[in-house]
Amino acid sequence: MKYSSQLIEKAVESFSSLPGIGKKTALRLALHLLNKDAQWVQGFSDSFVKLKNELKECESCHNLGDELICSICADGRRNTDVLCVVESIRDLMAIDETGHFHGLFHVLGGLISPIDGIGPDQLNIEDLIARVEKHNIKEIVLAISPNIEGETTMFYISKKLKNLQVKISTISRGISFGGELEYADEVTLGRSIISRVPYYQYDEVGAR
Amino acid sequence: MKYSSQLIEKAVESFSSLPGIGKKTALRLALHLLNKDAQWVQGFSDSFVKLKNELKECESCHNLGDELICSICADGRRNTDVLCVVESIRDLMAIDETGHFHGLFHVLGGLISPIDGIGPDQLNIEDLIARVEKHNIKEIVLAISPNIEGETTMFYISKKLKNLQVKISTISRGISFGGELEYADEVTLGRSIISRVPYYQYDEVGAR
Repeated sequence: MKYSSQLIEKAVESFSSLPGIGKKTALRLALHLLNKDAQWVQGFSDSFVKLKNELKECESCHNLGDELICSICADGRRNTDVLCVVESIRDLMAIDETGHFHGLFHVLGGLISPIDGIGPDQLNIEDLIARVEKHNIKEIVLAISPNIEGETTMFYISKKLKNLQVKISTISRGISFGGELEYADEVTLGRSIISRVPYYQYDEVGAR
Repeated sequence: MKYSSQLIEKAVESFSSLPGIGKKTALRLALHLLNKDAQWVQGFSDSFVKLKNELKECESCHNLGDELICSICADGRRNTDVLCVVESIRDLMAIDETGHFHGLFHVLGGLISPIDGIGPDQLNIEDLIARVEKHNIKEIVLAISPNIEGETTMFYISKKLKNLQVKISTISRGISFGGELEYADEVTLGRSIISRVPYYQYDEVGAR
């Protein structure tokens, strides 16, 4: 597409460099900005620069936050005996959003994937082990996607923690809430029968 | 959704204020920015502020551009006898992109819509008439969407131009290229038969 303006072209390039946004959508978004007032657009743009420049990685759990200790780690009401291990910050947010987990988190920053050249050393695994040892963690919940990389990572972590007195669990696999039984794949359905649970077992995790 | 960081919340708010972008996508985009370097994010953000503050409306055709006369109006190779009248800049770009129109444009900035309180006075119609008179335009092509507002606007413009020596045409309605005849609505199909064209009639518009 040719643009009659370099300014428009630049803004379209910016938007379309984002994942899932094509040139046509980018143009629509750029023209949308023109309907807003200048101050709004300034605030809009500043929010991204500030995000990039001021966001900090939590020294303890590798979550992102406004301070060097994130708001979850700093929350005194949380149960510090239980750690939920997740791949990414988005997974952390999704689990925190459920409201059923009241412990702390540990963000790995990825999964072991030899094919992509990602080994255990590039992930926050060493300091997960150190954290479990130092803070005498009683349980870790592996909330990791059930694919090859996820299974590999869980296996690696479980081996590393073998000699420590920590209970290791994973989130349950099963039929999604609202899902149709007949359309579930057989591995999921098989696992959901093997790991069946008592009908009324729904305890909050880490609640005190 | 709760965010562990005000900075993330702000950036998510910015993105999700754009049309068609929800909170989940906004979060994905915000976290995407964190993978870019600081300079890139600065350039990304600047492109929006610059767009808003430096973009100019063309004094002649109301297209947007970097100067007070847009790049299309300033292009000496264009045929200044033919004007293509469009609703918006996006329509202008779409037509220019086809490469079949070599005249100039006139952007109305909307369509007549009494229901939304938009009358002819809020659109760039008066100065379209003035432009036709002053520059002795030979043909105007109404490239306006065929809905009620579009038909009303075209009718209004054609009445206003009645006493001037200018040929008025509209873009043809018909079956889309690649479209299936059997699925076309009957109005379109009916019009496409009434306004049938010689099999080999494909002249560029305004070419010299």
